[in-house]
Amino acid sequence: MFKDFELIAGRPVYIQVKDYMKRLIIKGALQGGQKLPSTRELSILLKVSRNSIIAAYTGLEDDGFAYTVQGQGSYVALEANASVNAADSSWSMDWKARMNGHARLAEELDIMKRGIRAAKGTISFTSIAPDESLFDLDNVKRAFMDRMSVEGNVLLNYGYAKGYKPLIDYLRQYMEHKGVDMKGKDILITNGFTEGFDIVLSALSTGNSSVICENPTHHTAIKNLKLHGFDITGIAMERDGIHLGNLEQALSEGSFDCAYLVPSYHNPTGIVMSPEKRQGLMKLMANYKIPVIEDGFNEELRYSGSHVAPLIATAGAGNSVVYLGSFSKVLFPGLRVGWVLADQELIYYLESIKRARSIHTSTLDQSILYQYLYNGNLEKYLKKAKAEYKRKYELTLQCCKDYIPYTTLSGDGGLHLFVTFPEGFNTRVLLTACLAQGVIFTAGDIFFTDGKGQHTLRLGFSRVADEDIRKGIEIIGRTARQLMG
Amino acid sequence: MFKDFELIAGRPVYIQVKDYMKRLIIKGALQGGQKLPSTRELSILLKVSRNSIIAAYTGLEDDGFAYTVQGQGSYVALEANASVNAADSSWSMDWKARMNGHARLAEELDIMKRGIRAAKGTISFTSIAPDESLFDLDNVKRAFMDRMSVEGNVLLNYGYAKGYKPLIDYLRQYMEHKGVDMKGKDILITNGFTEGFDIVLSALSTGNSSVICENPTHHTAIKNLKLHGFDITGIAMERDGIHLGNLEQALSEGSFDCAYLVPSYHNPTGIVMSPEKRQGLMKLMANYKIPVIEDGFNEELRYSGSHVAPLIATAGAGNSVVYLGSFSKVLFPGLRVGWVLADQELIYYLESIKRARSIHTSTLDQSILYQYLYNGNLEKYLKKAKAEYKRKYELTLQCCKDYIPYTTLSGDGGLHLFVTFPEGFNTRVLLTACLAQGVIFTAGDIFFTDGKGQHTLRLGFSRVADEDIRKGIEIIGRTARQLMG
Repeated sequence: MFKDFELIAGRPVYIQVKDYMKRLIIKGALQGGQKLPSTRELSILLKVSRNSIIAAYTGLEDDGFAYTVQGQGSYVALEANASVNAADSSWSMDWKARMNGHARLAEELDIMKRGIRAAKGTISFTSIAPDESLFDLDNVKRAFMDRMSVEGNVLLNYGYAKGYKPLIDYLRQYMEHKGVDMKGKDILITNGFTEGFDIVLSALSTGNSSVICENPTHHTAIKNLKLHGFDITGIAMERDGIHLGNLEQALSEGSFDCAYLVPSYHNPTGIVMSPEKRQGLMKLMANYKIPVIEDGFNEELRYSGSHVAPLIATAGAGNSVVYLGSFSKVLFPGLRVGWVLADQELIYYLESIKRARSIHTSTLDQSILYQYLYNGNLEKYLKKAKAEYKRKYELTLQCCKDYIPYTTLSGDGGLHLFVTFPEGFNTRVLLTACLAQGVIFTAGDIFFTDGKGQHTLRLGFSRVADEDIRKGIEIIGRTARQLMG
Repeated sequence: MFKDFELIAGRPVYIQVKDYMKRLIIKGALQGGQKLPSTRELSILLKVSRNSIIAAYTGLEDDGFAYTVQGQGSYVALEANASVNAADSSWSMDWKARMNGHARLAEELDIMKRGIRAAKGTISFTSIAPDESLFDLDNVKRAFMDRMSVEGNVLLNYGYAKGYKPLIDYLRQYMEHKGVDMKGKDILITNGFTEGFDIVLSALSTGNSSVICENPTHHTAIKNLKLHGFDITGIAMERDGIHLGNLEQALSEGSFDCAYLVPSYHNPTGIVMSPEKRQGLMKLMANYKIPVIEDGFNEELRYSGSHVAPLIATAGAGNSVVYLGSFSKVLFPGLRVGWVLADQELIYYLESIKRARSIHTSTLDQSILYQYLYNGNLEKYLKKAKAEYKRKYELTLQCCKDYIPYTTLSGDGGLHLFVTFPEGFNTRVLLTACLAQGVIFTAGDIFFTDGKGQHTLRLGFSRVADEDIRKGIEIIGRTARQLMG
């Protein structure tokens, strides 16, 4: 005994001794009522200071694993492992068989569990997460320290389900500056876009709800719509956004509970819907009385051209648009903060669902984000990030033009481009062939609502080095030509 | 125009000017194509430096709200407000009428929306959140800085749905030291207990599931069980935990999909189930093959007596217990970090549900918590917090004995006590009478699974000052006596 004790760096020694002794007690190597070695003995056996042993024994007592008899020493607590490993209450069951349809579907639609595990050194165009080397860590640290010094205790205790008040107030203004009429509207802070979308769907789904959306569209949205039992109708995209003629036809023929739309830097096509189309779209939605769930995805990553107001601004004083915002792709995805901006009566209900789901979003994340924004860092960061992404965007665009035998190519900015090959071409076959050469991308079929899109792919360039962009796209292009014969 | 501009402190001036100009553009006070004042003019009008105006105009251009004509000046972008407030696409709908049964039930069961709004100065025994004056902010700051300097960029980018690997590894050891056989088990990090519980129920509920639990029990658990359509059977409590006789009878008569149990510092009764009862309970569960969802709530807040192993330790190598852990009540509720420890096949499915819900829990929160734990702060903090809570617990206990005409009083530690009055006494009436005297508590009926408990109340003492504990309980006691006649 006591020979397998090994110290690790950085963690207090007395805690390591305490943990080690606990393990012996739990395993039954030290029995309830048994006398522990004296602090002097154990100090020699474990080769640590006697003070550490004394502190460890005190810790064991604090945790109820030992007790002291005055003048005699320390003993293992009688009941410390009394209820552990009682053989006759140990049984096993088949959890997989217990999983309901929701759990099975969530697993089935989980593309992270179906994705390719790329070897190190693979050139990967699959990510549309930000380039972390752009992060301005010093400003994040400053925001944390600023906020902690103002109200650290408050930040670490319970907050409100609706969110951290200063952040909500900031976002109200922020959305006003995008042209949103905030009267009668309210904001709920969520754990990113995904939780916001999930909560909205939780409140609206009826078991046989139907939704209309762009085709292709954001695959996480497709997943969550399916998990909530929505019947999905996808409308084809044109170069400047959703096809309004097809949309009107679908609206006139079917009945829909809501629409889900990504008007800016649409995922996966990268298209920004034109202002005229936004107006036309919203008129149609008003005519057919279809509420819109607007995904504000990447709205901030505009490289050029005029500001384009979100759909919720187009709706003016109306309450028919539910806007989902997030800085995840623009700022820091690790901070899980998004928001739902909508009619205040709807937010009232969503707040109760949020409380039942996760009580509230991390106050620390919210307050760091708030202070970072208040300090004026978003503007500085965006200037730097947009310049860098624009450069990469133009490089990727040029490489696609130089190397890839595409039919159409889209992407007005953001962090990705979308490539469409001739009908009949299969990007899954292309992917397998490219993987063998150390290059991967996202096959486009996962973005389609109708099982099509086998001839498309998405190229995320935000985290790929310049030389890898060139090299990777050249390989994709060459391989595609070979496959085309 | 330009007369209502007002500077606020701390936020960069140029951003305030930019935001102000945006508002004018959005409102239509400045029209697309209109020339903006020269930087010199605006500097005088707004009384800020010309450099700030120049930076503001650059910012307006970056955001697509303005453009420059060389040698002439800045103009409002033509389409900056083109799609805003188009009257013919503005319409309103009745969101309340659209809310499904889930949303309505979530609102109905949301006790925060039914609670008493206490005036300032009210002595409130309603909270069982930790006392934030105990928080060791310096160690939290150090943990943040330590972790940021090691891998700041990584922390701010996307993490994994399962959780932050160093924290998972830490918790594996932590649970091993409580006697858990970790073989074949895995851990999923969640946004606190609530999300963990909600995700587990999402995977298990079948629409007509049934659960057996203690009566009374944690009201948030009751809410979530109801929201997932569970039929709830509550089993009465004895002084040392759930009544095993009643439990066995219920198990022999009914059919249950799972049990939900709070073995330590049970909410609301504060009872710690004895080791013998834990063994008896788990034998019953093994006999009837009922999986257990164990709420590890407040397990760390043991003031005295031996360590008592959690139920999942009693189950040994079996996989029938799903353990939900959290440091929320013990450490910082503001950091929303909890965990599900269970059979690895179950965790595999729960991970997919988690990904669909919120992608992952804040990496920043997880990494701060990890570093804080690794640095050995939990031990130090618990020592201080337990000493303080023990003192308050003993004071509250004594005051209850001195002043309150109870029938039974329970609470073995933790942050609250539970008072039972004679049958027929109504604590809602008592609450109304006490509120008029500036004292509130939690009426016990919300914790009961069978609509009973009108004669009970919960006293949370963690955030009440000593003199208020005395004063408040004296008022509750006196008022109760008056009501009893």
